Amino acid sequence: MSETQLLKGFRDYLPQEQMARKKIISKISEVFERFGFAPVDTPALEYYKLLGGKYGTEGEKLMYKFKDQGGRMVALRYDLTVPLSRVLLNYPNLPKPFKRYQIAPVWRAENPQKGRFREFVQCDADIVGSDSLIADAEVVATFAAAFKNLEIGEVVVKFNDRRLIDQVLDKLKVSTAKRVNFLRILDKLEKIGKKETLQSLKKAGFKPDLLTEYESQMKSAGLDFVEQFENLLGSFGVGNIKFDPYLARGLDYYTGTIFEFILKNKPEFGSIAGGGRYDNLIKDNKGQALPAVGCSIGLDRMLSALEEMGVIAPQTAAEVIVFNLDASLTADYLNIATNLRSAGLDCEFYYKPDKLDKQFKYAEAKNIQVAVIYGPNEAKARKVNVKNLTEKKQVSVDLDDLVTEIKSMLW
Amino acid sequence: MSETQLLKGFRDYLPQEQMARKKIISKISEVFERFGFAPVDTPALEYYKLLGGKYGTEGEKLMYKFKDQGGRMVALRYDLTVPLSRVLLNYPNLPKPFKRYQIAPVWRAENPQKGRFREFVQCDADIVGSDSLIADAEVVATFAAAFKNLEIGEVVVKFNDRRLIDQVLDKLKVSTAKRVNFLRILDKLEKIGKKETLQSLKKAGFKPDLLTEYESQMKSAGLDFVEQFENLLGSFGVGNIKFDPYLARGLDYYTGTIFEFILKNKPEFGSIAGGGRYDNLIKDNKGQALPAVGCSIGLDRMLSALEEMGVIAPQTAAEVIVFNLDASLTADYLNIATNLRSAGLDCEFYYKPDKLDKQFKYAEAKNIQVAVIYGPNEAKARKVNVKNLTEKKQVSVDLDDLVTEIKSMLW
Repeated sequence: MSETQLLKGFRDYLPQEQMARKKIISKISEVFERFGFAPVDTPALEYYKLLGGKYGTEGEKLMYKFKDQGGRMVALRYDLTVPLSRVLLNYPNLPKPFKRYQIAPVWRAENPQKGRFREFVQCDADIVGSDSLIADAEVVATFAAAFKNLEIGEVVVKFNDRRLIDQVLDKLKVSTAKRVNFLRILDKLEKIGKKETLQSLKKAGFKPDLLTEYESQMKSAGLDFVEQFENLLGSFGVGNIKFDPYLARGLDYYTGTIFEFILKNKPEFGSIAGGGRYDNLIKDNKGQALPAVGCSIGLDRMLSALEEMGVIAPQTAAEVIVFNLDASLTADYLNIATNLRSAGLDCEFYYKPDKLDKQFKYAEAKNIQVAVIYGPNEAKARKVNVKNLTEKKQVSVDLDDLVTEIKSMLW
Repeated sequence: MSETQLLKGFRDYLPQEQMARKKIISKISEVFERFGFAPVDTPALEYYKLLGGKYGTEGEKLMYKFKDQGGRMVALRYDLTVPLSRVLLNYPNLPKPFKRYQIAPVWRAENPQKGRFREFVQCDADIVGSDSLIADAEVVATFAAAFKNLEIGEVVVKFNDRRLIDQVLDKLKVSTAKRVNFLRILDKLEKIGKKETLQSLKKAGFKPDLLTEYESQMKSAGLDFVEQFENLLGSFGVGNIKFDPYLARGLDYYTGTIFEFILKNKPEFGSIAGGGRYDNLIKDNKGQALPAVGCSIGLDRMLSALEEMGVIAPQTAAEVIVFNLDASLTADYLNIATNLRSAGLDCEFYYKPDKLDKQFKYAEAKNIQVAVIYGPNEAKARKVNVKNLTEKKQVSVDLDDLVTEIKSMLW
């Protein structure tokens, strides 16, 4: 440990990554707003009393909590749902259904692993105050549209319904105590295969034909629900949906539909987003439960996936750099840069008349696409050299045509 | 204290405010990128050893610090500059000058006051690795352009230079020990007036004519610098700049130029952004100081100012709402909403066929501008009613003309 180090489990986002992140966030929020979700922000710190006991024993262990200067026990936000529930309590006059999205970091002191950090950004969109299945479908449609907007290839939605599962397990007389275990084993079926699943079930003391019975019962019991949900999603223009009787998700949390998004060509990444209906978590100021449905994308996990897929192109802050050939031309350089910026181009000026070689290296290191090269001769002729740094091609144009020339190079 | 309360000194940003914040952030970052600054993000938590001792005794008192699960002393980010200095140390290969911006919350356990919170977002842009005065001018030009992009009225830049101040105080033989006090009194001159300032100086034991001497010396000593800086800013297209010999700012921090931005018509808000050159704070991995210049906007303070000025218009997440007159038309409604969204309109669908009155109230509460009203009669005629909720005007159009009609209403 050194005073100059990043904390273990945390990471910096340097320009390349942060620009990619910003782009992703902007594409996601664009779609959230298109579907009528409004942004909300809540503090990073909350009373520990609000968060404590809400996330099981693991949450208790992983939550960052401490006493503040006023002796209050406080904790860093662990997810975005409990703060949402506080918002609904504190502002009873919010029009309902309340459709909000929040894109913000949460903190969990997990054991760091590849692609898993102690600070990570969640992108949540939830609808509070409607029990309509249309709301569930709209959440799914919103996230499907978000992934489409991100251009990350085909995404498959798997869905199920906790009520359906309970109904079937009631019928099959699986006791409540055993259900959690049964569903946990089932949830892994896609990963470990049917054979292994059967063995796990056997080992856990379930009768051998329970899986087959469960499957056929889910199929028949689910007929109506599956048709209805698929029709709704069809009206939203969402295809690529698949009823998955093995999908279980957070067991003490969801009360109705549950769903997960998978990359069709990269199923090994697992779910890139997931959610469902949770009608018991949020209450109004009279203690009345407010029905809710929502979904969440883990931004940084997604970013890793996109990086691995090569979908994230190298980003650059500046598109154009104005090189510095002669300090006496500074006013000209600044005028040129100002004109380019007014024309909507992201532009840097190289402050010192260093050797051109050094200036080219700087531009290359920053992925800048176009260099403007202008010295005393060009100044006399009111000409300017423009170099496309990607294609290594240089042209000379009139100073007045500079913006047009650069735009034609960039677009 | 209750488990359902916000922490004292913190605030929630509900849709109206958060939309305004988002808009401001996007306008600021647009300009930062136009000037070639690239975004960076760093963790909310750092080793306490990194932050401790960097912010004086007040900082020590106000910093949120605690022991994490691994027994490390950690602290919540107190500003964005010390994390920037760590980034420069940890990634020695970053191309220099390194132009980065960061828009992120910081935490200080200050006594809550109107417009002052314990969590607030700072918008910082800095240039590290250049000692050129062009860099100083570019920072000023960047922030001037950002305020222009925010359309908040005329902004005045006041500037000064710490080197100039020291040079003059050397000449006037004001001892180093007394300088801090002298400059602190001077910094308030604009607020309290010359008479009060003279009295404060007298009370603090300074000789009566020191102020006059200081003023005339600053004027003559500053001639060259002021001309050079004003010329540079002129080349950037920045006017409304004013040399202010009384401006002092953070005394143990800045080493060169210092500057502040003031709203011309609301000087009582004080500075809405400020910064300067600080050449001793950031070091490379060999211990060599890296020259730096930067500036910072306090987002939430700015937001309060804009709200008070009435510059922030009521925001809405959805522009259009599709009303629900008949549940059997659900597929039609969802198709209509999907078409509107594909056309780039932010659109909500009202899930339940409640009384129209209730649906209108919901739309009004959310500031939605246009309602689409479509019942069985309209369905038969392939017509649809469109109501402009602001102007309370309703028209009937062909279903195929819906997008065009709404766009003409909104734009």
